[in-house]
Amino acid sequence: MAPTSKVEADAVRWLDDHDPELRATLDRFVEIPSISTDPAHALDIARAAEFLARRLRTIGFGEVVIHPTSSHPILTAAWSGAGDAPTILVYGHYDVQPPDPLDQWASPPFEPTERDGRLYGRGLSDDKGPLMVALCAMEALLATTGRLPVNVRLLIEGSEELGSAGLEDFVVAHPDLVGADFLLSADGAMWRADLPSVTIAGRGMCALNVEVTGAKKDLHSGRYGGGVPNAAQVLVELIAGLHDPATGRVTVSGFYDGIAAPDAATRAAIAAIPFDEAAFFAGLGVTAGAGEEGYGFLERNWLRPTLEINGLTAGYGGPGFKTVIGARAEAKISCRLVPGQDPERILAALQADLRARCPDAVTLALTRKPGVAHPYALDPGHPGLTLAMAILEDLYETPAIAVRMGATIPIAEIFDRVFGMGTVFFSFSTSDEDYHAPNEFFRLSRWRDGLRAWVTYLVRLGEFDRAVFAGPSR
Amino acid sequence: MAPTSKVEADAVRWLDDHDPELRATLDRFVEIPSISTDPAHALDIARAAEFLARRLRTIGFGEVVIHPTSSHPILTAAWSGAGDAPTILVYGHYDVQPPDPLDQWASPPFEPTERDGRLYGRGLSDDKGPLMVALCAMEALLATTGRLPVNVRLLIEGSEELGSAGLEDFVVAHPDLVGADFLLSADGAMWRADLPSVTIAGRGMCALNVEVTGAKKDLHSGRYGGGVPNAAQVLVELIAGLHDPATGRVTVSGFYDGIAAPDAATRAAIAAIPFDEAAFFAGLGVTAGAGEEGYGFLERNWLRPTLEINGLTAGYGGPGFKTVIGARAEAKISCRLVPGQDPERILAALQADLRARCPDAVTLALTRKPGVAHPYALDPGHPGLTLAMAILEDLYETPAIAVRMGATIPIAEIFDRVFGMGTVFFSFSTSDEDYHAPNEFFRLSRWRDGLRAWVTYLVRLGEFDRAVFAGPSR
Repeated sequence: MAPTSKVEADAVRWLDDHDPELRATLDRFVEIPSISTDPAHALDIARAAEFLARRLRTIGFGEVVIHPTSSHPILTAAWSGAGDAPTILVYGHYDVQPPDPLDQWASPPFEPTERDGRLYGRGLSDDKGPLMVALCAMEALLATTGRLPVNVRLLIEGSEELGSAGLEDFVVAHPDLVGADFLLSADGAMWRADLPSVTIAGRGMCALNVEVTGAKKDLHSGRYGGGVPNAAQVLVELIAGLHDPATGRVTVSGFYDGIAAPDAATRAAIAAIPFDEAAFFAGLGVTAGAGEEGYGFLERNWLRPTLEINGLTAGYGGPGFKTVIGARAEAKISCRLVPGQDPERILAALQADLRARCPDAVTLALTRKPGVAHPYALDPGHPGLTLAMAILEDLYETPAIAVRMGATIPIAEIFDRVFGMGTVFFSFSTSDEDYHAPNEFFRLSRWRDGLRAWVTYLVRLGEFDRAVFAGPSR
Repeated sequence: MAPTSKVEADAVRWLDDHDPELRATLDRFVEIPSISTDPAHALDIARAAEFLARRLRTIGFGEVVIHPTSSHPILTAAWSGAGDAPTILVYGHYDVQPPDPLDQWASPPFEPTERDGRLYGRGLSDDKGPLMVALCAMEALLATTGRLPVNVRLLIEGSEELGSAGLEDFVVAHPDLVGADFLLSADGAMWRADLPSVTIAGRGMCALNVEVTGAKKDLHSGRYGGGVPNAAQVLVELIAGLHDPATGRVTVSGFYDGIAAPDAATRAAIAAIPFDEAAFFAGLGVTAGAGEEGYGFLERNWLRPTLEINGLTAGYGGPGFKTVIGARAEAKISCRLVPGQDPERILAALQADLRARCPDAVTLALTRKPGVAHPYALDPGHPGLTLAMAILEDLYETPAIAVRMGATIPIAEIFDRVFGMGTVFFSFSTSDEDYHAPNEFFRLSRWRDGLRAWVTYLVRLGEFDRAVFAGPSR
């Protein structure tokens, strides 16, 4: 992709010249174990927010503020010198997933390590790498021209991996800090490394911790076995009962209510995407897919809701055997939701189902994950989306495709619902980069592509008339 | 209970005089974390065996040998100076259960701590306390009379908590070291603190580790959820499917084959035992029992087989939530078996059931716990049993009862099957002493009772004619 202006060319050259320093900054950011779900890392969360705040002030942003919230702090900043040019809200997050299981990492999760053109470390793909791409592209334009082509507001949260807990309250309370023509997200990975794509829809999410307590202490399985409630037994029956094993469908009453059957056009568009399901499963190490009957993988993942078990813990889990009846058994479950489903209604139905089926002899404790996400979809004709697709097509010399996705980015749904703002996902991470698993990585080729594409996006967006963004976002 | 001979009286006085030293020796023994199931504790296992060997030589036993086996070492010793008096084989074990969950212990598990007349520490009740009772009683007789009233062989194993793995091969190979008129076991707790009892039957046991592997790595539950096999989902369906939730019965084909229905006399005898089921459950912190329909707790635990989940591990088990589809899911399950069931046949049926129901898309790995135990029952008229019951009745001034038990002591079944030797359980631990759970303890009153009762048992047994033990053991 050749620069089409001196501004672009100068910024790209600056990025090439300063790559070692920019990479070092990324390393420092990744070294902070800002794990939002683990209270033991609260100080690291604060350190990550401070790190970004200092960085933003250094590169020329103003109004840099770290806001306390009911969850982790939110960072906002602004650069407002582009007059009548469009205003965008750039979004990213500084929190990361836990690194466990630690023993499966080839290099320590919080020591960024380059191997074979990939940079390994927790958070590199989700979302510290892509967020630094956006910030460095803006730094290059500020450094070479003293300005940005568009007005930019920044919103960087620390609770994305908690379902963006506290974010909605914050944006509702601060329209002045986050209002913009649309949201440009540095989060939200591309679907595949071999196919440039922009995400236009994501599933919603809600999650529940299910804890069964039987006797008040662990019991000997010989002395008591066969005659007292076993919390693990109750748990597996409750959890197994959430699906019909014959059809793969969720059995919770009302779960599928309100969902439109996929229309023929959507199914045809998905069928037209080059996707080798058998090769995909083989790459994952399984011989076949699983899930709701009557659909292929992409339909199941993009169009259909799901209920997954994310964790099970009961009794003895160490080496060898221990003939114990554990007092407690716990399951973590989450649902991915599609248009027509309301997370609150689904959580209520799930809780009612579990309570109704749980035997009276044991105690059932249901704890919601803080934060839920509604499902989301963008108008396929949104001008910010069209620009993103055109730049990807230039960069990769192949048509970019609009894809739906199975994962959740609550930010898009919140801004759509609260402000009618659309979200364009312009991220250069890729969905195979193991971002909720051991050995998370970010492709260094995507680091370079992303820096260049963000410069071009901002420069070209500066030429748009703001009025084109006035319509509905979806 | 008044001593009936000078020999008894002298030995009891010696025990009273030397109690501080004997208690200190018990403490040293408990301080060794001889956890047989965890390979990290192999050196502690060796230390515990050496500790006992030194002790036995000190108190006057000969032929003290530590034998390597396919599992942990077995210790044998002998005192053979009683001529034509009966010969008994005294049995105990020096290995203990793992102490987890560590955070639930009020004092460290391997630092014996006295509180309110109880001595707390892992292994104190099962079986280090009762084993030291037997050894100290013999030490007292040897110290005060220079001899024992009967010939004694000792067999002390280190794999009891592994289902006595390796023990059967050892005793088959060494009839000269272990042959005796009957086996007197220091292991096998009394049923209740308020009711003196001797155990005459125990359930058998077999156990299986069930591991399901889906994808070759952990996956993001949004990017993949709904379309790929979730190992935890497969596991809960497999494990839940082992029971009929309506009847509480195990669904594995052939599981109940060969079991005689409990006869009316046995059910009547059990019904006559003073046992407040509601108070028992309330004491455990549950509002009701659970298990196979049509039986009360004692019948379920003593007469009926069971299949229990001892552990579940899958995906994320830490604080908060992690939206992951874990690559692996594992369950540890064990069965307690009753006469008519063969552990090998049950394991084969269980494995066949799980394999038949496991989807092809995932990998199922089934690993047997080393060692199985057959169910066991003693002839209720065995003279060694009658003596034990009489001594308990004298000691506690209330009739002792013969009870069956839900737990497993493989030793009794092995000696019955291999040599036709009966086993009399003469242990002074009690089944409520949390021996497979946190805060295991041994009542200090039972320490004193046990020392005295063992002295009396050995002295009175010395007056028996060996010929009375020549009949069948059951």
